[in-house]
Amino acid sequence: MAIKALLLLAILGSPISVARLTAAQSDPLASWNEGPAKLAIVDFVRTVTDKNNPKFVSPEERIAVFDNDGTLWVEQPIYAQFTFAFDRVIDLAPKNPQWNDQEPWRTILARDTKAMAKFTQQDVDRIIAVSHSGMTVEAFQNDVKEWLVAARHPRFKRPYTELVYQPMLELMQYLRANGFKTYIVTGGGQEFLRAFAEKVYGVPPEQVIGSAGKVRFEYDKDSNPVLMKLPEILLIDDKGGKPESISMFVGRRPVAAFGNSTGDQQMLEWTGAQRSARLMMLVHHDDADREYTYGATSKIGPFPESLMAEAKSKGWVAVSMKNDWKKVFPFEGKTP
Amino acid sequence: MAIKALLLLAILGSPISVARLTAAQSDPLASWNEGPAKLAIVDFVRTVTDKNNPKFVSPEERIAVFDNDGTLWVEQPIYAQFTFAFDRVIDLAPKNPQWNDQEPWRTILARDTKAMAKFTQQDVDRIIAVSHSGMTVEAFQNDVKEWLVAARHPRFKRPYTELVYQPMLELMQYLRANGFKTYIVTGGGQEFLRAFAEKVYGVPPEQVIGSAGKVRFEYDKDSNPVLMKLPEILLIDDKGGKPESISMFVGRRPVAAFGNSTGDQQMLEWTGAQRSARLMMLVHHDDADREYTYGATSKIGPFPESLMAEAKSKGWVAVSMKNDWKKVFPFEGKTP
Repeated sequence: MAIKALLLLAILGSPISVARLTAAQSDPLASWNEGPAKLAIVDFVRTVTDKNNPKFVSPEERIAVFDNDGTLWVEQPIYAQFTFAFDRVIDLAPKNPQWNDQEPWRTILARDTKAMAKFTQQDVDRIIAVSHSGMTVEAFQNDVKEWLVAARHPRFKRPYTELVYQPMLELMQYLRANGFKTYIVTGGGQEFLRAFAEKVYGVPPEQVIGSAGKVRFEYDKDSNPVLMKLPEILLIDDKGGKPESISMFVGRRPVAAFGNSTGDQQMLEWTGAQRSARLMMLVHHDDADREYTYGATSKIGPFPESLMAEAKSKGWVAVSMKNDWKKVFPFEGKTP
Repeated sequence: MAIKALLLLAILGSPISVARLTAAQSDPLASWNEGPAKLAIVDFVRTVTDKNNPKFVSPEERIAVFDNDGTLWVEQPIYAQFTFAFDRVIDLAPKNPQWNDQEPWRTILARDTKAMAKFTQQDVDRIIAVSHSGMTVEAFQNDVKEWLVAARHPRFKRPYTELVYQPMLELMQYLRANGFKTYIVTGGGQEFLRAFAEKVYGVPPEQVIGSAGKVRFEYDKDSNPVLMKLPEILLIDDKGGKPESISMFVGRRPVAAFGNSTGDQQMLEWTGAQRSARLMMLVHHDDADREYTYGATSKIGPFPESLMAEAKSKGWVAVSMKNDWKKVFPFEGKTP
């Protein structure tokens, strides 16, 4: 708005114009372009919060679930938690000299990123188990916090916690302002996520559900009770594991679910298979300039053609990062 | 208050008396006798909610955990959930004719309560696994709800959901009114508890943590996604399993913990082993007239002498049902 208009406004004192101005400034979804995705969100929220609407959802049933990697923050070129695990292996190496001659440790210690990209699921499970155990839950989370301060993303040269999607932060906040409980439901480790989810996403630890290693209650040398992380996996919170975990942790079926890959498919299907109002969305990575492109262009990958076809047939909203998001990261347009 | 006093009050209109009267009527812990237990509760709540107190606890850290059987409702002469399981076995028997010749089924079908009281842990695990699987989570909870309406406690001849402890209901409500999140942490099945916890205790499903069977995401014959209960145990939420589960589900250490047996010991120890203000309480069953007596009188049992000794040495509060509770059940003093 030009200075002249502001002056006019001050002189004429039009209350309607001021109200409009305020409304525009306080758009809770300011980083979303006007379009079908934003419209679907606003329409859904209006429907479920309107007591006179037959599709009204009572506040305690307003459960929204969000995948993390690729839905709330950057997952390319490699999951942040894998980088954390590799860094921990390097830290632990001096106490494990045998690793110099053993795979997969040797590859990590050689920083051979090309070979690391080819690790099998079995390799990854072993690396996660070893690097995420042998300490208390509290000590582990302190390690994660320290790592998050120091680590930098290879392309963006920023801490991972800055590489969160501004439109999704606004969406979570908008849902909470409308009585929703926002949950993170991640294939990543729940204790890893809990180290930063409250600060970065406004999601308290009890609303972070993720893959989980076993933990054992024991007494330390001073007879204090402690919870030790064991190198055994208890829950894999991916694909069918997501609805299974939501059932166990929340005990209610969500009415809104947000993901970006086949790992989230079952969570969206389960959310969608009910009569109440519900909203299912997939973040589609189609913006190589501002982030990455790994969307529905082939039969394989995290977001294959078949997932886009299912989304279309079931009325799930595919969010185009390129077209639906005015801004991707919070730091855009700010001086670093 | 007599009519005469009320009339006097109306005529004199003393605002102080009215205020006092209101305060007395609205004692949030009205079913607790004045004494050390009530004092400990009120003192703890005042401390943690007082911003000027160095032991102030921020609202998000106000986590209170409650055992269920014997802490919130009657667990004698047998856990309600076991009776439910036995009743289900009887219901399932026509489809399982081989049970007539197999233990432990034969004993249940013969309603041989003496032999049932001698079931081994292995028997019980098998009975729970079989009686709590083979249906969706939703169907199971509907069965529990139906059973709770029909079943009667053998001594009190009332539904189990009426055999909850009035002072503990008040305590949970008092804590919630002071910004606490109240969790149930039970050795019982979490899906069993969730079928009634919101209605009876005011505790939503996401705040009920318990033993859990495995659940599997699958598609039913109409291709609808469903969560099927499997006859396999995933979590045993007893003894060390309680702090382990609290860590997994809540991700925070509680500041208040309430139990009644050695199954709750580790949860109280873990709650107690921190610097912040904290409150640990054990309900001591010493009231055979109004409920049962199975308290600290021997070396064995759910509340052995050793647990009472630990409580004393660590400053845990042992609540005497006989002396600390004015009233045990909500229905006392009411016409049935």
